[in-house]
Amino acid sequence: MPASEKPRLAGADGLRHSVLGGDLVFLLARANALTLATANAALAEHGLKARSYSVLALAADDARPTQRELAEFLRLDPSQVVALIDDLERRRLVERRTDPADRRANVLVATDEGRALFRRASESARAVELGLLAAVTPEEHERLAQILRLLAFPG
Amino acid sequence: MPASEKPRLAGADGLRHSVLGGDLVFLLARANALTLATANAALAEHGLKARSYSVLALAADDARPTQRELAEFLRLDPSQVVALIDDLERRRLVERRTDPADRRANVLVATDEGRALFRRASESARAVELGLLAAVTPEEHERLAQILRLLAFPG
Repeated sequence: MPASEKPRLAGADGLRHSVLGGDLVFLLARANALTLATANAALAEHGLKARSYSVLALAADDARPTQRELAEFLRLDPSQVVALIDDLERRRLVERRTDPADRRANVLVATDEGRALFRRASESARAVELGLLAAVTPEEHERLAQILRLLAFPG
Repeated sequence: MPASEKPRLAGADGLRHSVLGGDLVFLLARANALTLATANAALAEHGLKARSYSVLALAADDARPTQRELAEFLRLDPSQVVALIDDLERRRLVERRTDPADRRANVLVATDEGRALFRRASESARAVELGLLAAVTPEEHERLAQILRLLAFPG
């Protein structure tokens, strides 16, 4: 019968068997949307979302990033990064400081309270990751991270 | 020496070795941002971006999705889907139709011109994917797609 009279592939369950359902760029986009939603839900108990958690994590890691480095690394607009830092700074979790090792750089550092919150939140983040990948082996989990690093940091 | 006097981990190259640089949700977000940019650049020669390509792909696949199904599947706001369809319809690549198999459903179908453009664009999309994963084996490529499907279509 002609295509127009075949039953429709109803809903997401049908669409995922389409050509697009096997497309890497699409699968990454949809996996990203869903995992972000899961992470946001898990981080809510700490008053964080995936984005503010990311900023806090980099501040707590003694990387002392500048705002520009944060924007590039997190692929956000500088204005978005400023808003995220403002919020964390109001909550006394991070501070903007002149870096003693490079007086031209205005860098982000975590307060003691920020480090403590990061430690608790990182346990939630790790639990999210293990839950999402419960069906894969530890070896595959590690290989997935390696391949995602290739895609996230090419060249 | 105290942490504040250590040299900064400068730029993305330093930050990627932070705790966050190994976080699955973050790696997915950054891999998604970069692969979308690569796909958008490759699809530009067809007058498409990743999102409009996705809509065209589902229309060309005879899935006959409704606008609501497209929004849910692509994780976009319904208003974004309407704008994408409007643009493709203006270019006579897709049509909104009443589905003969279900007269209550207003579904999206590709025109012959839309199908031809999709075939050409899907070759570009496939080349992007193979280029992005040039460093992994075909077996790993397939396993990556399986794991991304687990994350993109849980339950």
